[in-house]
Amino acid sequence: MADPLRVTVWNEYLHEVAEETIAAIYPDGMHGAIAAFLRREGLDVRTATLEEPEHGLTEAVLANTDVLIWWGHLAHDRVAGEIVERVYQGVVAGGMGLVVLHSAHFSRIFKRLMGTTCNLKWREAGEKERIWVVAPAHPIAAGLPEWFEIPQTEMYGEHFDIPEPDQLVLISWFEGGEIFRSGCCFYRGRGKIFYFRPGHETYPIYHHPHVLRVIANAVRWAAPAGGPIVNFGHRPQPLEDIGSN
Amino acid sequence: MADPLRVTVWNEYLHEVAEETIAAIYPDGMHGAIAAFLRREGLDVRTATLEEPEHGLTEAVLANTDVLIWWGHLAHDRVAGEIVERVYQGVVAGGMGLVVLHSAHFSRIFKRLMGTTCNLKWREAGEKERIWVVAPAHPIAAGLPEWFEIPQTEMYGEHFDIPEPDQLVLISWFEGGEIFRSGCCFYRGRGKIFYFRPGHETYPIYHHPHVLRVIANAVRWAAPAGGPIVNFGHRPQPLEDIGSN
Amino acid sequence: MADPLRVTVWNEYLHEVAEETIAAIYPDGMHGAIAAFLRREGLDVRTATLEEPEHGLTEAVLANTDVLIWWGHLAHDRVAGEIVERVYQGVVAGGMGLVVLHSAHFSRIFKRLMGTTCNLKWREAGEKERIWVVAPAHPIAAGLPEWFEIPQTEMYGEHFDIPEPDQLVLISWFEGGEIFRSGCCFYRGRGKIFYFRPGHETYPIYHHPHVLRVIANAVRWAAPAGGPIVNFGHRPQPLEDIGSN
Amino acid sequence: MADPLRVTVWNEYLHEVAEETIAAIYPDGMHGAIAAFLRREGLDVRTATLEEPEHGLTEAVLANTDVLIWWGHLAHDRVAGEIVERVYQGVVAGGMGLVVLHSAHFSRIFKRLMGTTCNLKWREAGEKERIWVVAPAHPIAAGLPEWFEIPQTEMYGEHFDIPEPDQLVLISWFEGGEIFRSGCCFYRGRGKIFYFRPGHETYPIYHHPHVLRVIANAVRWAAPAGGPIVNFGHRPQPLEDIGSN
Repeated sequence: MADPLRVTVWNEYLHEVAEETIAAIYPDGMHGAIAAFLRREGLDVRTATLEEPEHGLTEAVLANTDVLIWWGHLAHDRVAGEIVERVYQGVVAGGMGLVVLHSAHFSRIFKRLMGTTCNLKWREAGEKERIWVVAPAHPIAAGLPEWFEIPQTEMYGEHFDIPEPDQLVLISWFEGGEIFRSGCCFYRGRGKIFYFRPGHETYPIYHHPHVLRVIANAVRWAAPAGGPIVNFGHRPQPLEDIGSN
Repeated sequence: MADPLRVTVWNEYLHEVAEETIAAIYPDGMHGAIAAFLRREGLDVRTATLEEPEHGLTEAVLANTDVLIWWGHLAHDRVAGEIVERVYQGVVAGGMGLVVLHSAHFSRIFKRLMGTTCNLKWREAGEKERIWVVAPAHPIAAGLPEWFEIPQTEMYGEHFDIPEPDQLVLISWFEGGEIFRSGCCFYRGRGKIFYFRPGHETYPIYHHPHVLRVIANAVRWAAPAGGPIVNFGHRPQPLEDIGSN
Repeated sequence: MADPLRVTVWNEYLHEVAEETIAAIYPDGMHGAIAAFLRREGLDVRTATLEEPEHGLTEAVLANTDVLIWWGHLAHDRVAGEIVERVYQGVVAGGMGLVVLHSAHFSRIFKRLMGTTCNLKWREAGEKERIWVVAPAHPIAAGLPEWFEIPQTEMYGEHFDIPEPDQLVLISWFEGGEIFRSGCCFYRGRGKIFYFRPGHETYPIYHHPHVLRVIANAVRWAAPAGGPIVNFGHRPQPLEDIGSN
Repeated sequence: MADPLRVTVWNEYLHEVAEETIAAIYPDGMHGAIAAFLRREGLDVRTATLEEPEHGLTEAVLANTDVLIWWGHLAHDRVAGEIVERVYQGVVAGGMGLVVLHSAHFSRIFKRLMGTTCNLKWREAGEKERIWVVAPAHPIAAGLPEWFEIPQTEMYGEHFDIPEPDQLVLISWFEGGEIFRSGCCFYRGRGKIFYFRPGHETYPIYHHPHVLRVIANAVRWAAPAGGPIVNFGHRPQPLEDIGSN
């Protein structure tokens, strides 16, 4: 694993450009806010956005990315299939980590990796969310209190149509009556994926210290493990004598 | 859940037509052998094959199928995308069970549901396989001994690129030195999927009593649960007062 | 598996005897209310309580029990170690199912099987609980709506110190701000265990149709699977030649 | 988490003292061989053995241990209950990591944490073991090939009566025909536990570079996460108004 970890923060970066109230919250985009924090954590961070050539995710960029963070909402369909495939291979074959934020539950890359619809319930009512740690031994819980609060947020509610997480770290309570599996770990191929719920564009959620703490922890957890390169396919030669036939 | 369970056994049915030695083992096709056994178990069984219109998987057939069994090998790419999508919706939204056999690890429907490459190692050397039960409390282990043997089989070896199974029931030992997670349960959406490794076309594996026992058990395990229909999407109305805003 | 399933409902049966208001809710004890429902479901049900000889759990009773339901609160320490061991062996070696209710999270048998402290947060404030299905494909969700409500209950809050469930079926939302993993499946040895949170003695929770539905579903899920009897210990004779040494 | 990690290698240290052939393989004990390797990895390592006062596991030692490695075989029953309890609290409440080796599957601490019998099959025939990575994304697989071989070993065979691991990293193939889940991760309370199968006293297994690599990886994986201290018990004050009652 590279030291420091090389992180690429990807954001479709449309809301912040189109709406002044959002730009006021995130003058450098949500990716900018997240990147600034991760740099303060000592990581080697770059950003990439939808409108850049190849969405900023060239072969060279991905080859130098240990963990990719993904935020999308309005334009999932505008992400080119070729880039989705490139990221997919980076995760499954290359071992790149992927941290999927909030509305990116519906991103093409997350749906591809999960194999389910990734659908959920939602409501925009500025309600309160309280996020509980249910796996205190997990590295993504490092430095967190037992729970933390987001004063105003968009609600996401169950059923969240994902595979049962390989580890469930966080569950959200919502003022309006719903719950949600908000911090979910998945192992896929040689890569690791963390889905993290918080992050609506109209609230300053990516300035929240505990939210940022979770993202930094997730980046470290999702870093490439350095496990074996797998050889698939035809193995004509047995490893042992097949004496009996 | 319907009683008796309604099972559709799908087979691409190409090997048995093309090769006499295989036809000799499976005069009614592999689907025929499996269907005959399941009928003796009291299930309501039909079959469907690749060359039938809509591959035999019309809307009407799927609407009357509790569990679909899938065998494919040569012609994964000839299965129409529309039918894959139909089966996918049947599983994830409709709760239909899916039992995926042997070389169908590379079927479009299984890869779609897993989100991984589903790749593996393989070798055709007629070697011995011994299948061990590692989850004796699981209903798919009903009526099995601690292990059973397949005298001659194609080898499948790890790493098998699937998500970690929600339950791992069976692990195979191979004479040539490999191991394999051979009986794997997955929950996806409202449906359940069981991957079962045995089943090469050139050996009489679907006449093996323990192999058939596992398939029958898997059908019962994968039967629709009758859980809630999920309402996704916008929930403008909170379930509780949002008093603080 | 026996047909019909043979269920023993165990209750310490102290609250109902000691307090008139509780006796008014459960004139036949909580075990009586649960047993009456399960009999209407067609199961073969008996009950057992703390004050009976051997707590009503003789060798003969357990030998004729497919699934044991357990409710305890005041007197966990009065359950004899020998009986705990008998139940333990019944589950792990014998494959008997165990459904653990509410305050029995602190029962000796549950703590023994979990290996953790099984501790949690709690509050008695008559608050509302909403129970969400997060595994709609699971048989314990059969016949349930997406969520159901208990108007007044004791709160249990995370962190609940259990091993991560083998399947998580239900999560509770509480009016006072907490969440809880309320329906948890565990495989242990040849047996299956379901922990189900609802059930305080001072509310008519075991008259609630959805609560009773979950209990009946859990009984069916936890029924002995009929998997292999496991032979442990010394296997002097290899199954294959050890040719190389 | 301390830097460098503070590791205590515990060994009952009876075989090496009693038998010359074993002493020849491990002149400083198995703990000595493991400790020497971990020191070369830059960790802060001490050792402790059965015959020391309090088995070398005083309060002070455990308070300064991030990860405890445990090897036992002949004398599980001679480990004092008080020390078992101390280690248990260190893991579950304190977040100390625990790496359990080989025959310590039957140690009191492992059985206590698992809640199952931890029984298995075994055979001493000097047969070959081949260990396969089935979770290439997992940090415990770092630096490993797809599989590695132990030329002569004691066999452990399934069924291994443990809870289904939270992650299964390694599966063993044995020359004599068995398989075994050899690298198993468990989260318990605030702590993490890794069970690793290899390690019989009569073979130089703790000199094997891949075996040592797994142990070092497991130590790093099991290191305390720094997650929240959990407050259990009575929470009289709700976090939210309970307005409706």
